[in-house]
Amino acid sequence: MPRFFIAGTNIAGGMAIMKGRDAEHVHVLRLRPGDDVILCDTEGSDYKCRIVRSSKDEVEAEVLEVTPCISEPNVKVSVMCGLPKGSDKTDYIIQKSVEAGANEICFFSCDRCVAKFDEDGRSKKLERWIRISEEAAKQSGRGIIPDVKWLGNYADCLNYAHQKDISLFMYETGERESLNTVLNGSAEFKTAAVITGPEGGFAQYEADLARITGCRICSMGERILRCETAPIVALSAIMYATGNLG
Amino acid sequence: MPRFFIAGTNIAGGMAIMKGRDAEHVHVLRLRPGDDVILCDTEGSDYKCRIVRSSKDEVEAEVLEVTPCISEPNVKVSVMCGLPKGSDKTDYIIQKSVEAGANEICFFSCDRCVAKFDEDGRSKKLERWIRISEEAAKQSGRGIIPDVKWLGNYADCLNYAHQKDISLFMYETGERESLNTVLNGSAEFKTAAVITGPEGGFAQYEADLARITGCRICSMGERILRCETAPIVALSAIMYATGNLG
Repeated sequence: MPRFFIAGTNIAGGMAIMKGRDAEHVHVLRLRPGDDVILCDTEGSDYKCRIVRSSKDEVEAEVLEVTPCISEPNVKVSVMCGLPKGSDKTDYIIQKSVEAGANEICFFSCDRCVAKFDEDGRSKKLERWIRISEEAAKQSGRGIIPDVKWLGNYADCLNYAHQKDISLFMYETGERESLNTVLNGSAEFKTAAVITGPEGGFAQYEADLARITGCRICSMGERILRCETAPIVALSAIMYATGNLG
Repeated sequence: MPRFFIAGTNIAGGMAIMKGRDAEHVHVLRLRPGDDVILCDTEGSDYKCRIVRSSKDEVEAEVLEVTPCISEPNVKVSVMCGLPKGSDKTDYIIQKSVEAGANEICFFSCDRCVAKFDEDGRSKKLERWIRISEEAAKQSGRGIIPDVKWLGNYADCLNYAHQKDISLFMYETGERESLNTVLNGSAEFKTAAVITGPEGGFAQYEADLARITGCRICSMGERILRCETAPIVALSAIMYATGNLG
């Protein structure tokens, strides 16, 4: 059944109103009155609806049933990455993280980031990132559109991470705990931050800072993962460990 | 320390001889007599060597130490995918699977494969796939170069999978076990097959055939993963579950 995202406010009195791009999309899919669609309110609820009236600009549908979206994980993981070089890598991280169940994707700047975030083009860039998230969310049947954020510098990143129940800092060298040890030994958590570095990894002082401020410094084994691969592998492991993969 | 792969036969009497592309690479990296390199014998051993003589065509190095390559997982996972459309997806599956620890990557044809494998261009295609694997293996510090294979049709795929200790068939619908249940409930395994479908997924009869012949039909949750994402997520979960991620 076709899935759409709709702002919760457009559902009222047992009726849903779709406008703009979504109405157009209904038109393109040749859906007609009597056809059923699923509308996600982007907050984790699915509205099963039957189209009652449809034009290119506006579609009206009757709400048949409201259910919690079963595809949403019960742990909210924030994937936080040092900004990689090249938009193909950021795009890739966003798309795959959304599929694999991330709650949000954040980028930040740190010592070895080669790429610079263009603050002037900020809103355009964020718009593009959100669009990639939205597409991936639709395609994979998510109940929310994971937010994509620019966090600023490394201190801002750590501050943000420490708002979560647990902060996991993926590091390739030095004293580390295995991801298994950390996840098995942790009290149940509802929110988690997973921090991975840019192409050149993290500087030693950044890892020290993460440790001092309370991050768990984690190893994912002796294989060296590319900066765009590490977040997906870590996220998949966390989803598995928390029972959200099946 | 720079890592190279070398055929085991070129190491004899405590000396290693590098030729061709590898010798050129040593030259490009401006490595000189006295510099150390790691040579992997592609069978899981690392040879720490010191260069004693070097030209563009041939490099001679003294073996200082032989150690098992610590980056190799203790479970050999065969990632087996229905051939996707577009070489960017096959390339992606190979590269990411190698990073995440696959022992080999196999492609096969099945009902909903849109892409056709060009049997005439077979050797050229396989050569290209192996090169991608080799590059990813070098970059991620693997101790082997994971093989990349073309298995043929779906029956050949199942026959091949059943040579492994356990065969996991990832399916998006119908009666399935969660990946957690399957992995937690399985006796220790040394080899595993992970089977994922092409863009359109598997036909019902293919899933039935997999079940009848002894595959475990697995769910990875309610999110719909793209054909190039599913193998990486499944592989990461298996690596985590078997203690090979940290």
